[in-house]
Amino acid sequence: MATLKDVAREAGLSVGTVSRVLNNRGYISDETRQSVNRAMKKLNYQPNEMARSLSKQRSSMIGVIVPSISHPYFSKLVESLESSAHHEEYEILLFVSQGRPDREEEYVRACISNRVAGLILCTGSVRTARLKNLGFPVVAYERLLNDADAGVECDNYEGGSLAAEELIRCGCRNLLCISGIGEVSMPADVRRDGFLETCARHEGISVRSFACSEESISDLKYKTQLQTCMDQNLGVDGVFASSDVIAAELLGVLRARGQRIPEDVKVIGYDDVFVSELTTPELTTIHQPVKEMAQTCIDIIRRAAAGEAYPARTVLRVNLVQRGSTRMLRGD
Amino acid sequence: MATLKDVAREAGLSVGTVSRVLNNRGYISDETRQSVNRAMKKLNYQPNEMARSLSKQRSSMIGVIVPSISHPYFSKLVESLESSAHHEEYEILLFVSQGRPDREEEYVRACISNRVAGLILCTGSVRTARLKNLGFPVVAYERLLNDADAGVECDNYEGGSLAAEELIRCGCRNLLCISGIGEVSMPADVRRDGFLETCARHEGISVRSFACSEESISDLKYKTQLQTCMDQNLGVDGVFASSDVIAAELLGVLRARGQRIPEDVKVIGYDDVFVSELTTPELTTIHQPVKEMAQTCIDIIRRAAAGEAYPARTVLRVNLVQRGSTRMLRGD
Repeated sequence: MATLKDVAREAGLSVGTVSRVLNNRGYISDETRQSVNRAMKKLNYQPNEMARSLSKQRSSMIGVIVPSISHPYFSKLVESLESSAHHEEYEILLFVSQGRPDREEEYVRACISNRVAGLILCTGSVRTARLKNLGFPVVAYERLLNDADAGVECDNYEGGSLAAEELIRCGCRNLLCISGIGEVSMPADVRRDGFLETCARHEGISVRSFACSEESISDLKYKTQLQTCMDQNLGVDGVFASSDVIAAELLGVLRARGQRIPEDVKVIGYDDVFVSELTTPELTTIHQPVKEMAQTCIDIIRRAAAGEAYPARTVLRVNLVQRGSTRMLRGD
Repeated sequence: MATLKDVAREAGLSVGTVSRVLNNRGYISDETRQSVNRAMKKLNYQPNEMARSLSKQRSSMIGVIVPSISHPYFSKLVESLESSAHHEEYEILLFVSQGRPDREEEYVRACISNRVAGLILCTGSVRTARLKNLGFPVVAYERLLNDADAGVECDNYEGGSLAAEELIRCGCRNLLCISGIGEVSMPADVRRDGFLETCARHEGISVRSFACSEESISDLKYKTQLQTCMDQNLGVDGVFASSDVIAAELLGVLRARGQRIPEDVKVIGYDDVFVSELTTPELTTIHQPVKEMAQTCIDIIRRAAAGEAYPARTVLRVNLVQRGSTRMLRGD
């Protein structure tokens, strides 16, 4: 592979001059710049990012730690993060913790060793003491981490509240809230609070709550728990599930019990990931603005690198997307 | 942040000695090693991976270029790659090309600049001239790239063949093969060949073929094309779709046309990703051993780094997973 020295020899210039061209330092004539570019092209020279990073003591990589990536919510998030990062000329160093605290701490150390430009933490079990004075900003995504430098989340309370209003508007009176993604995750718990408190503000509405444990978030299998849940909660006519994956599995469980959707039971999910359009009927859900949330995370890291101010907490709006699981469609 | 100098001062040793301990070079007494470790712990020192990589001219990162990651097949793949990479002490530098050739070439250049230990290419549009003499191995994953150093794929022909045998065994006589993921992808096209040739070996079976174009693989939306397809192909009683996502969308399209699954039309997908268990009925599909395929990719890069021989082409077995979309279940 061609080195800086080879380029300098080819261009008939000193290594120092070629380095100045590459790093845009000091005055360089157009002629010099062109002969360096010609030599680089001829030798197919690629600047060594590692060496450039070392001289800056900071790489162009952003560490991203997610609990899972086969989960459609996190795969949508990582796709959005990569897209925003690419736009700002960052690369994504991806870590999947499978929700294991030891792996998460190990990955934080790997980010320190690789001198990342910033870390986006989509997991809540890293001990906060590990997040102080890392020399780069830590952004907590949909997680309550007091010692993160910034937090980005959607308006989870509003999401739960919108789901309750929609089910009640559709005539449901016996409501059930199923929450999942156990861990230590707090912002998502607020969905349940928003749902329950909104129900309490309406007359004649009974409401129950059930928590799914998540043995392994990568498994994406809740069926057994959902069967137990529906056995324990007979007579329910409206369900709010805190993710589209749980809601999609619930449709199968309800159908196996002979309950029709939306005639007998109406169902609302959360996230608005692609699975919500693959089910029969399609899922009414709460849309999370994942692209905007991802863009906000990358922007915080870009601003921190540029020495600009950035918000400590950003909460983005959600909205209700109506589909077949709460609505009677023509022909049904 | 603590530097090598700080650790040396704390341990009362020279920087050179501390560096030898960190890099395991030359003779070092246990006592010296322990005092370095104590100093590192006390100062919370993290070795600078960038500096270490530079001295080796090779990082511990593996570049991965996928066309999409919100697509459940690729999110499952990336999760498996990350898991295998972590086990071998590599990190994943993730790039999502959205199927755009300019982005793919740009990402190959980013891998060169970052001196990756290897590159796993899950995309077929990079001009092969760009893949020569990169100084690290290039593994083509489910893609025919003649100039890659190694190829890893599943037995796509066998997968198509298994699907045809199953539909015929279930009594279907008017078969349709729907393929997608357009691009330049060749191995997946072999699924169609396996399907069509197996049909041709059976008497009294008529078979047709339809190709879905993929405007944007991240969109995951095929409904309009599938409606056109079913309008053009009346009387079909068995469909093989070359991905579970296409098969899942097809279930909704068929149901909207008043066709029952599996009574009127039997459907088989490909991949065995989680969406195949979220549909009603659940999808019969061809299981791809994604974990083993990912493990093989990482192993090739590890072997290349160690100077060991590795196979130029690895083809892994697939198998049929029977679920409700071809089978009459009790109670249906």
